[in-house]
Amino acid sequence: MRRFLLVVHDARTSADFSLDDLAGGAGRMDLVARCAVASLLVSHGVRTDVEFLAVLLGPPRPPRLLRLMGAEIRGLNPDERSTGALLRKALAWEGLAESSVHPGVYASGRGLADVLAAIPPPIHVLEEHGADLRDAVLDRDVTFVLSDHRDFAPEEQALLATMTAARLSVGPRPLHADQVVTIVHNELDRRAPLTGSLRPCGG
Amino acid sequence: MRRFLLVVHDARTSADFSLDDLAGGAGRMDLVARCAVASLLVSHGVRTDVEFLAVLLGPPRPPRLLRLMGAEIRGLNPDERSTGALLRKALAWEGLAESSVHPGVYASGRGLADVLAAIPPPIHVLEEHGADLRDAVLDRDVTFVLSDHRDFAPEEQALLATMTAARLSVGPRPLHADQVVTIVHNELDRRAPLTGSLRPCGG
Repeated sequence: MRRFLLVVHDARTSADFSLDDLAGGAGRMDLVARCAVASLLVSHGVRTDVEFLAVLLGPPRPPRLLRLMGAEIRGLNPDERSTGALLRKALAWEGLAESSVHPGVYASGRGLADVLAAIPPPIHVLEEHGADLRDAVLDRDVTFVLSDHRDFAPEEQALLATMTAARLSVGPRPLHADQVVTIVHNELDRRAPLTGSLRPCGG
Repeated sequence: MRRFLLVVHDARTSADFSLDDLAGGAGRMDLVARCAVASLLVSHGVRTDVEFLAVLLGPPRPPRLLRLMGAEIRGLNPDERSTGALLRKALAWEGLAESSVHPGVYASGRGLADVLAAIPPPIHVLEEHGADLRDAVLDRDVTFVLSDHRDFAPEEQALLATMTAARLSVGPRPLHADQVVTIVHNELDRRAPLTGSLRPCGG
């Protein structure tokens, strides 16, 4: 299982946002949508061996955790608007316990510490000044944590420092989070091209 | 100069589409938007050494060429909707000669043959079964041609066969065009991390 965990500092934690304003009023929900797609979709297929998690920390009731499972998900398309609609549907669930809101999409009130504690090692942090991903030893079962357009907050940094195996960088340029996910997948695909199945889809 | 040329078979060639339906009625304009962003933007910056071109071949009046220059462009943001609005603005120009419709955005009636003839070599084609990009000799001035979610048509294949230097693949999985662009940039960034300047932006 490959797992990507995105920390989104401004993303809205309720469903009361417009799909016309994903990048504005929704607190960069456009970025969450792109990262979900980069994590789970390839050309005409879904990566069934991937889990995408997003910890949303914006108003009005943070934290909210969205969890998308490649093995189960239905109706995920590459475009931001339809993916934003799926994320909004998940945010309509306001409970603390995890609930399945759509095939392969789960929502709960968990925060970063809870999520990290539940993930088996190794956990790597993706950041601009980390060691080169291409030189890293990477297990088939592996988790990567990355931040949105903002740096990790000091308390997040402290939490990650106690729980992560390595700090890795994908290259010399600071990139968007979804671009980073795409490059990580490519490196893993090259190392073990036959692992992980795909489920065809129209996207 | 790095140059990416996307051939988009279904993309609408007039401005009469809704930003709410980029992936549907606009003929996969969502993909064009994502490829523009993958080509031109990094975290908080614009790649000033990149040109993105899209040949649109959908109804009602193909072909239309959109050309976005990283060195000049203003107001390009990472989200699909605002980028789609920029593309739609460019498609409002219906003339055959090239016109500047927005800072760094140009539109004309040129088709694939005309565009390829005007681009200096080397031109590489990105496709699923090409040679490994990581093993390729890549100049600093280089153009990559790629297709949307469909394969190149036979007449496009024939045209490309006469004008391109190599057929290259980014890895073992067929990916979305914007994912391919991101991986090509990463490879080039690694080889020459100091070339190409960035202009800061809010994105």
